[in-house]
Amino acid sequence: MPINPNAAMEVTALAWVPPLAQGLVKDLRVRWALEEAGFDYRVRLLGGERPSDYVKEQAFDQVPSFRDGAVQFFESGAIVQYIGEKSEALLPRDPQGKYRAIQWSYAAVNSVEPAVQNRVLLDSFYADEEWAKLYTPTADQFARLRLKRVSDRLAGNLWLEGDRFTMGDLMMITVLRLADCGGLLGDTPNLAEYMERGQARPAFQTALDDQLATYRVNEPKGEAA
Amino acid sequence: MPINPNAAMEVTALAWVPPLAQGLVKDLRVRWALEEAGFDYRVRLLGGERPSDYVKEQAFDQVPSFRDGAVQFFESGAIVQYIGEKSEALLPRDPQGKYRAIQWSYAAVNSVEPAVQNRVLLDSFYADEEWAKLYTPTADQFARLRLKRVSDRLAGNLWLEGDRFTMGDLMMITVLRLADCGGLLGDTPNLAEYMERGQARPAFQTALDDQLATYRVNEPKGEAA
Repeated sequence: MPINPNAAMEVTALAWVPPLAQGLVKDLRVRWALEEAGFDYRVRLLGGERPSDYVKEQAFDQVPSFRDGAVQFFESGAIVQYIGEKSEALLPRDPQGKYRAIQWSYAAVNSVEPAVQNRVLLDSFYADEEWAKLYTPTADQFARLRLKRVSDRLAGNLWLEGDRFTMGDLMMITVLRLADCGGLLGDTPNLAEYMERGQARPAFQTALDDQLATYRVNEPKGEAA
Repeated sequence: MPINPNAAMEVTALAWVPPLAQGLVKDLRVRWALEEAGFDYRVRLLGGERPSDYVKEQAFDQVPSFRDGAVQFFESGAIVQYIGEKSEALLPRDPQGKYRAIQWSYAAVNSVEPAVQNRVLLDSFYADEEWAKLYTPTADQFARLRLKRVSDRLAGNLWLEGDRFTMGDLMMITVLRLADCGGLLGDTPNLAEYMERGQARPAFQTALDDQLATYRVNEPKGEAA
């Protein structure tokens, strides 16, 4: 397990989140990438109330933020790519392979995640709102269409670009985990299998276990697990 | 003007879109990046009905898709980054500068654009829907909060990382153009000025003029300009 308090690479994470969000917070992407690459890293935990100067390192006051020695920046996609540039385990070196992987990373966060998140929030975060019920059919159709496009492209392949796992798969699979929480993968069994294939990777398991272990340790008294 | 039918680099664009979408279609990002870099490129126009095999090159059946010789991929953020890796005009070479620029590109398409797009669609595309009116206050507040975070970070700087324009600014400014169409920049005058600063760049002007000129040439008979 590469968590090492003296490592040069540091990722920020939340000490605890409610059960619905556990396993979905985006530091998971960075932890997973670091585990795939086999790099040592340390984790800096933040509470629900961030330190007032945290916004200087993460403009949206969210996690993850990342540091590697003097280099500091945020956005999970950018961080995963930085790790990929240091490890061929995530990012091929030939231009076609490299940019196909980066393409899928952007596709995950811009062409798929917003549609999936809109849909999933309607019957969770916004479940009590009248407009959420009325918006659901439209949002549901749009999210499923985007997932269908990914399913069509994946077809019967192991990973999005064939036999080789890349950062594009890592990013897309974390979005599919959100879709799965919202029950959106029923029409696309190949995407459900692809997600499970990603989740079966030892690096993913370690990353998820580490994130969840932190939440267990920091669970507020009186909260259900 | 670097449009050259014999260029190795090719971007796809739409022959025509309705007036509301003109100047917002995402091939503009790629055109702008290519103009900043000074690279020759050709444009392949698509109609409203795409060729049935277009989805093989752009999984979501959208524009832009990009080709440079044998390298082919999609997603505007990935394409702009590819151009940046070939031109320091868009992407600094030091790791901090490079990843701050990439950070803002991901922030534009994942942390800002989805919130802005949700809000803008409510009183345009979904204007006749009852749920859209009810959802507006929530969506408006969230979009403005995200824009405020960018505004706070920009503060009085010329560009997001100080004096130097990067691909992060290019991507963010195209998102701010959408926010501006929705009347969302009134609370953040520094973002409005920053957008105007970007739009005043000769490379942006050429890219926008080229996109709009195509729409004029291909305007369906009977459509208002």
